Amino acid sequence: MALIVSEAPAQFAAAFTSNAFAAPPVEYCRELAQRAKSVRAIIVNSGNANACTGRQGATDALRMAQQVAESLEISQDEVFVSSTGRIGVPMPMDKVMSGIMLAAQALSRQGGKDAARAIMTTDTRMKCCAASMELEGSRVTIGGMTKGAGMIAPKLQPVTHATMLAYLTTDAALEPGVLQACLNESLDYSFNRINIDGDMSTNDTFIALANGQSGTTPIRAGTYEAECFQKLFNEVASHLAREMVMDGEGVTRFVEVHVSGAKSRAEARLCAEAISNSLLCKTAWFGADPNWGRILCAAGYSGVEINRQRVSLDYEGVPIVRGGMDAGTPEEQQTAAINRRQFRVDLDLGVSNGEFTMWTNDLTYDYVKINADYHT
Amino acid sequence: MALIVSEAPAQFAAAFTSNAFAAPPVEYCRELAQRAKSVRAIIVNSGNANACTGRQGATDALRMAQQVAESLEISQDEVFVSSTGRIGVPMPMDKVMSGIMLAAQALSRQGGKDAARAIMTTDTRMKCCAASMELEGSRVTIGGMTKGAGMIAPKLQPVTHATMLAYLTTDAALEPGVLQACLNESLDYSFNRINIDGDMSTNDTFIALANGQSGTTPIRAGTYEAECFQKLFNEVASHLAREMVMDGEGVTRFVEVHVSGAKSRAEARLCAEAISNSLLCKTAWFGADPNWGRILCAAGYSGVEINRQRVSLDYEGVPIVRGGMDAGTPEEQQTAAINRRQFRVDLDLGVSNGEFTMWTNDLTYDYVKINADYHT
Repeated sequence: MALIVSEAPAQFAAAFTSNAFAAPPVEYCRELAQRAKSVRAIIVNSGNANACTGRQGATDALRMAQQVAESLEISQDEVFVSSTGRIGVPMPMDKVMSGIMLAAQALSRQGGKDAARAIMTTDTRMKCCAASMELEGSRVTIGGMTKGAGMIAPKLQPVTHATMLAYLTTDAALEPGVLQACLNESLDYSFNRINIDGDMSTNDTFIALANGQSGTTPIRAGTYEAECFQKLFNEVASHLAREMVMDGEGVTRFVEVHVSGAKSRAEARLCAEAISNSLLCKTAWFGADPNWGRILCAAGYSGVEINRQRVSLDYEGVPIVRGGMDAGTPEEQQTAAINRRQFRVDLDLGVSNGEFTMWTNDLTYDYVKINADYHT
Repeated sequence: MALIVSEAPAQFAAAFTSNAFAAPPVEYCRELAQRAKSVRAIIVNSGNANACTGRQGATDALRMAQQVAESLEISQDEVFVSSTGRIGVPMPMDKVMSGIMLAAQALSRQGGKDAARAIMTTDTRMKCCAASMELEGSRVTIGGMTKGAGMIAPKLQPVTHATMLAYLTTDAALEPGVLQACLNESLDYSFNRINIDGDMSTNDTFIALANGQSGTTPIRAGTYEAECFQKLFNEVASHLAREMVMDGEGVTRFVEVHVSGAKSRAEARLCAEAISNSLLCKTAWFGADPNWGRILCAAGYSGVEINRQRVSLDYEGVPIVRGGMDAGTPEEQQTAAINRRQFRVDLDLGVSNGEFTMWTNDLTYDYVKINADYHT
């Protein structure tokens, strides 16, 4: 159980899963995000997703908010609620309620790492970071934490869509709307460019809080300051997203799939998604098998426009395909380019200038092991 | 190398992959299918897909047809060409040409099983079958063979789309158009309802030949005879498709995913596809883990309309979800329902009466092993 609290009422911005079975806590937050002006706290439990739990699930999410409100002496409408874990199991509310009271008592300025640890499920390490910048002589800081290792293919939509959970907090002062605009803008550079296993969760949640405690003049949209803040925001969000893929279930390789030369950004995205979803690409990467046919094959069925005679592919800058055919690089060199912990795949579709980057990973024995649940 | 020859000129019907990197042999067949009235032979090699091989690939496909024509003393425009195997490697034409000559010499009425064996790649067993019926006192037979164990998610489109390869031959006499109509109709009951690993190949091909040697009056569309023939055709095609999934790479369980209650057949299909593509569902099946949350989660992100309060799910007739929530069946009973070599999942979306059935399988260590190519 993790409890995030802002010392002052905080503006917020959020994005949730677009899964039709969005969990009761997600629905609770989505509804709250529509009417609340500011919030003070976020309560997060791991172990149970409170998803597919019907009316009882909705009641339980509300009770969690009420308990936090009571413990912190704030309004229940100032509390976001997140859950992650198994789907379809009723929440163990006794444990949850006492957990909230314990978390409220244990609140501390130094508790960030404990909180990041508390929300882990199959994650092997906690993921948090912070970055700051100068503004009007004051230091403005953005801190973030996230969790998620499986069921990761978010497609977050602003105030609609991710079981990745990510929370950013900042002491920046912002004019209304700036935080949500920042969060929206950050998605394509962070949580919406990652894909571990292609499964979009019922509980994905990304929430940012800004409480203005840095004391600077509120940042206005379209200014140089807003641009700097956006950059900082993107940096923190993308660092966390990258960490999530690195720590994905059974992951041994991090792969950056960059598609360019597409008809549009949307087509580049579709193509990068097909490659990052392809079991044949993902298993080849695990084996450091340079089998480029699998990448072209996935691009070929992604439904995007391709100029076959102009297609090219590089692994870490090493030419693999030119003009839609083998570039003639010896297989040992191809293998060497991808036989590493991180590598980059560049596919140019040769049509126009649309591009998109996805962060994904290999598919390994351990992924199967973790998710087959040892029942065999 | 397999060579299929009809003693008399045969009508044909065909469906090919819709992959944008459709291989040169596929393009050759597609073009031939547009202008030929009848064919006599199909030549098939395994080991090399002749895909992403450019102009040389096109020349090689043509040379294969020419060699068959010469060996059999028929026209090159009476020969279909199929290839399956590695993508992006030039065809070893010396081997191929002498293979064709050997195959032509070895032609025999008893060679069906040898041919079915010759087209295997990672298949563990040959897949062929035959069925027949009485018509006007004569016996009409449909024989079929197929191969394919990985890179299987065909979505064949008539004369456009499958590296599954499937060939049906029949001695039925048919009026023009009936064979293609039959093949089109059969797809949703056979090769277009299977999904082993979600990767659609560059070479998928399904060709049917009918040479009229049964000697009956040609079957006309819309008649009782056409209906009987269609049924026989569906039986052979669906048997082969089912066999293909059973023999899929690393497969230990065959899963029939039946989605009903959808807004439309197309939405039922989308939902069934999402479930059959979900790594979390497929690994849970491997582990006989009844984790139904993963199935609802996949349905939830498939983008189809769902009535959450009316969703129900059964494993082999055992109630798992009712009203969008746990049906209360003890976990041991849930596990028992799916801890078998074949089982059926019935998901009712509670919206309307659209339905679709997919045939898929679990994701296992062996799938990863086969496709990681032992390079690690």
